[in-house]
Amino acid sequence: MVNFKNRDVISITDFSPEEILDLCGLGKVMYDLEKSGRRYNSEYKFTVKRKLASFFCESSTRTRLGTNAAMYELNGVFDGFSGAEGTSLTKNETIRDTIMMANALHYDAIIMRHSKDGALQWAADVSQTPVINGGDGINEHPTQALLDMLTLYMYNNNKFDGLTIGFGGDLSHGRTIRSLSLALSHFDDITIRWAAEDFLGMPKDLSDLLQSRSVKVERLETVREVMSGVKFYYMTRPQTERMKDVSQEQVIEMMKKYRVDLSQVDGFDVRLMHPLPVNSKIAEIDYRVYFSPVQSFFKQAEFGLLLRKALLYEILKHDGYIQFSGKLDPKLEFGNNKLKREIKTRIKEGMFIDNILYGTCLDHLPSASAQGIADGWNLKDRGYFFVPANIPKTNKSFLKTDLIDPTERELKSAAIKAPDPTVNYIKDGKVISKFVYLLCKNDNCITRAVNEDVPPKFYNDDGTIRCRYCRRPYTLKNQKVSETELKSFVQSLPKSVNPL
Amino acid sequence: MVNFKNRDVISITDFSPEEILDLCGLGKVMYDLEKSGRRYNSEYKFTVKRKLASFFCESSTRTRLGTNAAMYELNGVFDGFSGAEGTSLTKNETIRDTIMMANALHYDAIIMRHSKDGALQWAADVSQTPVINGGDGINEHPTQALLDMLTLYMYNNNKFDGLTIGFGGDLSHGRTIRSLSLALSHFDDITIRWAAEDFLGMPKDLSDLLQSRSVKVERLETVREVMSGVKFYYMTRPQTERMKDVSQEQVIEMMKKYRVDLSQVDGFDVRLMHPLPVNSKIAEIDYRVYFSPVQSFFKQAEFGLLLRKALLYEILKHDGYIQFSGKLDPKLEFGNNKLKREIKTRIKEGMFIDNILYGTCLDHLPSASAQGIADGWNLKDRGYFFVPANIPKTNKSFLKTDLIDPTERELKSAAIKAPDPTVNYIKDGKVISKFVYLLCKNDNCITRAVNEDVPPKFYNDDGTIRCRYCRRPYTLKNQKVSETELKSFVQSLPKSVNPL
Amino acid sequence: MVNFKNRDVISITDFSPEEILDLCGLGKVMYDLEKSGRRYNSEYKFTVKRKLASFFCESSTRTRLGTNAAMYELNGVFDGFSGAEGTSLTKNETIRDTIMMANALHYDAIIMRHSKDGALQWAADVSQTPVINGGDGINEHPTQALLDMLTLYMYNNNKFDGLTIGFGGDLSHGRTIRSLSLALSHFDDITIRWAAEDFLGMPKDLSDLLQSRSVKVERLETVREVMSGVKFYYMTRPQTERMKDVSQEQVIEMMKKYRVDLSQVDGFDVRLMHPLPVNSKIAEIDYRVYFSPVQSFFKQAEFGLLLRKALLYEILKHDGYIQFSGKLDPKLEFGNNKLKREIKTRIKEGMFIDNILYGTCLDHLPSASAQGIADGWNLKDRGYFFVPANIPKTNKSFLKTDLIDPTERELKSAAIKAPDPTVNYIKDGKVISKFVYLLCKNDNCITRAVNEDVPPKFYNDDGTIRCRYCRRPYTLKNQKVSETELKSFVQSLPKSVNPL
Repeated sequence: MVNFKNRDVISITDFSPEEILDLCGLGKVMYDLEKSGRRYNSEYKFTVKRKLASFFCESSTRTRLGTNAAMYELNGVFDGFSGAEGTSLTKNETIRDTIMMANALHYDAIIMRHSKDGALQWAADVSQTPVINGGDGINEHPTQALLDMLTLYMYNNNKFDGLTIGFGGDLSHGRTIRSLSLALSHFDDITIRWAAEDFLGMPKDLSDLLQSRSVKVERLETVREVMSGVKFYYMTRPQTERMKDVSQEQVIEMMKKYRVDLSQVDGFDVRLMHPLPVNSKIAEIDYRVYFSPVQSFFKQAEFGLLLRKALLYEILKHDGYIQFSGKLDPKLEFGNNKLKREIKTRIKEGMFIDNILYGTCLDHLPSASAQGIADGWNLKDRGYFFVPANIPKTNKSFLKTDLIDPTERELKSAAIKAPDPTVNYIKDGKVISKFVYLLCKNDNCITRAVNEDVPPKFYNDDGTIRCRYCRRPYTLKNQKVSETELKSFVQSLPKSVNPL
Repeated sequence: MVNFKNRDVISITDFSPEEILDLCGLGKVMYDLEKSGRRYNSEYKFTVKRKLASFFCESSTRTRLGTNAAMYELNGVFDGFSGAEGTSLTKNETIRDTIMMANALHYDAIIMRHSKDGALQWAADVSQTPVINGGDGINEHPTQALLDMLTLYMYNNNKFDGLTIGFGGDLSHGRTIRSLSLALSHFDDITIRWAAEDFLGMPKDLSDLLQSRSVKVERLETVREVMSGVKFYYMTRPQTERMKDVSQEQVIEMMKKYRVDLSQVDGFDVRLMHPLPVNSKIAEIDYRVYFSPVQSFFKQAEFGLLLRKALLYEILKHDGYIQFSGKLDPKLEFGNNKLKREIKTRIKEGMFIDNILYGTCLDHLPSASAQGIADGWNLKDRGYFFVPANIPKTNKSFLKTDLIDPTERELKSAAIKAPDPTVNYIKDGKVISKFVYLLCKNDNCITRAVNEDVPPKFYNDDGTIRCRYCRRPYTLKNQKVSETELKSFVQSLPKSVNPL
Repeated sequence: MVNFKNRDVISITDFSPEEILDLCGLGKVMYDLEKSGRRYNSEYKFTVKRKLASFFCESSTRTRLGTNAAMYELNGVFDGFSGAEGTSLTKNETIRDTIMMANALHYDAIIMRHSKDGALQWAADVSQTPVINGGDGINEHPTQALLDMLTLYMYNNNKFDGLTIGFGGDLSHGRTIRSLSLALSHFDDITIRWAAEDFLGMPKDLSDLLQSRSVKVERLETVREVMSGVKFYYMTRPQTERMKDVSQEQVIEMMKKYRVDLSQVDGFDVRLMHPLPVNSKIAEIDYRVYFSPVQSFFKQAEFGLLLRKALLYEILKHDGYIQFSGKLDPKLEFGNNKLKREIKTRIKEGMFIDNILYGTCLDHLPSASAQGIADGWNLKDRGYFFVPANIPKTNKSFLKTDLIDPTERELKSAAIKAPDPTVNYIKDGKVISKFVYLLCKNDNCITRAVNEDVPPKFYNDDGTIRCRYCRRPYTLKNQKVSETELKSFVQSLPKSVNPL
């Protein structure tokens, strides 16, 4: 068995094929014990008392109660909250402080759900005890992916190689399909078939990625065509809560051809999966299908409990407990998001920096954005000298000010308004330091929540710059950065999210 | 002791007098242990770990915390939610799916509260583990009735025969008075006296039913008149939240004569009961009465804990646990709500079915309702042929369409608009099947919540047709069904709600 | 060790210096066990099962989860609610009934938070089991004060004498600074230094009180000046939720000079404390300070758990449990808020009482308030005779009515409109009883919540009349009470809040 001691569980992509197989193997052991009446087997029981923090900043029943249930079967306990009301989050408490509080209160592990992408990687960075991602925005929900894998494993002769699966419902707005297909992509000879309305279909980037990993991906016209070639059919709920400008009625219309009713499954020997809940108004699975032998989603829910039991056992089974230091890791303070540039030209007096001897100049800003930054920084009221200016005959602008050393929050608010600004620090009328300030461009990324004070961090994923938190790929905008500079920056980045 | 192993607790009317006496006897044992300092007596302790799902879709403190407390004293645990926010119910999850999830997560029993009448019978039908009704709409709250019985039992020399009780407050809008008086009606020589404002008085159907069971029921003018002839006085809170078009001020006015204050109890040796909470604005019990020796409602609350302890112990004391099958019982799919009619006349071409060779005709509809049904079925947009028509010189209408085999949801939505429609299935221009579609007429019945997909089911309660779920009596409307047809239908129904 | 068996924890001012030292000593033991890996030491474990009611009528994470965590480490359990939604409090249930319910459900202790000042003293008065104040309005939060004391104790060589501390942030709208400084005032040679914007500064009454107890209190201009003379700096969050007519933006402006950032702590060897949560929008502590060695607030959070563990252990460690009587203590019914006055003059016929033979006369009312009282009592609709009248050439009025013996609620509603009314009871046309009705003048005091039926009670705090519940000092208004009468009243009061 791979060593999972005190392991964070943030993204399904952090799991190697061996780890997935190991966990599924242990999940099967849990299931076998269940079936033989040994649910509370003494072998799988924590040797010391264990307490889980169950912090669901967004509401949850299934994941929350399932994780709690797993703790209970292992002889552990849990406490926490579901929904942000009634918590200090409404008093502007940061994730960092919430996590430190959980550590201070001697929780042995934390499961958390949060609306922002990447919030759970940040929580794990902060926490001195292991953190499990119970869902971060539309980003990841790794225990869902793992339980889906366990379900496939159980019903596919304890292996994944050669597996065929169909996807339906909403392949675009949720995290389930992405996570599961990425987990499967580790294995050999995987076939994915899908049929869905365009708006709900599989995103091209995912499709491309899977195919680059030798997964066979086929889009088909009808649900029956998909069914005809697969052993599993994975249906998902249209995530209406994440769609803008689309009504539930429109979604019902989109789903008309793609609902799973008896006529769609008739004659096929498939196992129908669904992460639940089914939306009973859309009824993406017709109620008559619930009574059909294809229905496998309730056992899937039980596998969820068993998988979480296996996972928590492996993470927390050891003796002793982590003592709380009360201190933050200094690595949490600094990002690696400053692409340093060579200072070729001094800013000329009379042109850029006028009478600024000490201060800051932001350039390479989109036209007209300089004033907005100055407003956001509140330079006028604070009594600073500043000049926002458009550069003639370009669509660029710059902002110069005698504010020295803007704060990280100020740089973030600038980068939100003007992506990839070049920041020049001026001393004695000369630029002494110059860099491009990189901030993840995913609007929902936790690094863009200014008050949370998450340092933007990136890593080098085989040549692609990715945000450490939401893991979206990063591309420079509005910048003429030399290839050498960029290459050198990419090489300076860590090769993966681990270690911090 | 009666065997309560894995018993569902849905309605107080499901309990026989022997069962009530048995439970009260065990409740008394629990109380005696409490008084002798043996709250955690090892004899009344689950032999295997037991976990209760505490699913309060409507908020609760007393019932929820009291049931949790009982589990704790028996060495069991609990988990769940209170209030629907923060749960998947807000994502349109059905009761069926919620219950199956609870089963999948290995809860040994479920207590649930839900706003719809009959929801808990449905939950019990679905569940593979025992279900306790923690309150369904205004329907039932059986553990409240049982704890009331225990209180009477304890203070009436461990018996019910010959008991005299007064009722006050709101006898009409709550479930307490109905359940308790029905439970008492099993026993001999019961006298009920009551006084209340007309709007809040005892419903005639209940009064009639009790008298048919030899309960002496007397309405009196004043609270003091009631007090003068009873050993117990059971006061209830006006259920303002269930009253339409009546303000709290109006209720306060109605209660003026009927509030229990010191002048009302002065000189009487009664025990004053109340299910709690008392509404402190209405103050149906004056605060000075709290200090009087008649006050017995706080002990009643403790008996609630002890009764629940006795009940849960009996339901869950056995060894082993129920393994989750993951499958729904096929009996959940089909209702017995189709009153089949002889096909005497074929629908004539040119008159009813025009050019419909294959399709459906709904008739015996109230005038002008046919169009509404067509709209609800969205026939126009879906491209079906249809004709809604009023039948001249009658107040009836019919709807014919080439839609074949409408779904259960479609039939329900039709029956909500037009009670007791006759449904004709047409094949080759002829009616091949004809039945009246029966749907419970209680607006708040769970079977009328279309998305929940509860199959309408009825039973034959000594000649009265009753809804399996909300248990309201059923009477046909707008139909000329022959006595023979009706009698044969009634005889085809099960004689009680058990078995499924 | 002082005996804390079944002790209520309502106000930090109830703790003697010895008690504080004892608790901190035990807190240190808990910490030493934690550090040596004996978190679940068998010595500090309840010998019988213990269950805590965790009733947070206002939301909480830190206090709630921390108290629960302490119960868990002691081998106890907890249950309850957070936030009033989903509880009977929304059905107008009183605190009294909520507490009695908790007693009936066999909770061994109750922690409660409530929006009204003094609500927890009332809860403790009612409860048969110990009650811990988890925060009542802006009044008290004694376990916060105790954990702050433990933190100081741990970092100040296990003593308080000679301690120097700085206060910052909001010294005016919260309860933290007041409670902590009062606790410190028991000890010798304490120095408090503070700097804050006027609106957020230390209230003069507190400053005076501390100085009367020989605490050295100094206001300084800047945070750095404060820092330069202290070993601890206690920062607090501006309590924007308790400020009227002040926006968060205005508060941010006020805090500009007083935020703790690196420049403020640079060069000082202080320990920075904060009760948490920090408001990340105001950022009263800059995020860079989190990484500085001065940061001590996360350990402070852990000391919170350890202090609560010590406290709960001492309160509940004994054998056995409290049996529920079901009865209210008769002392809860009567207040000592009626300042009796000598009946010098009979009310003259034809002048005050006209044709009232039996009834009530309220006088010494502010001009024009008599009519409002009559309206509040609904005298007209209820058919009583009444005369509200202004007394010519004064700014006073009186109300006479043939209503006999107004209820406590009626007297309260009168006293809310007209502070300190004189109440005359009239019999046979003569005043037979005459008193001033005293009601605490703190608008947020629980005694003024009419429906809660809390009897106004006062005590004699070394000559000062104080409300038993919110403990605010009381001063008569609009009354010419003789010194003798007043002195005799004060002497009749209990000398402290204990006993009831």
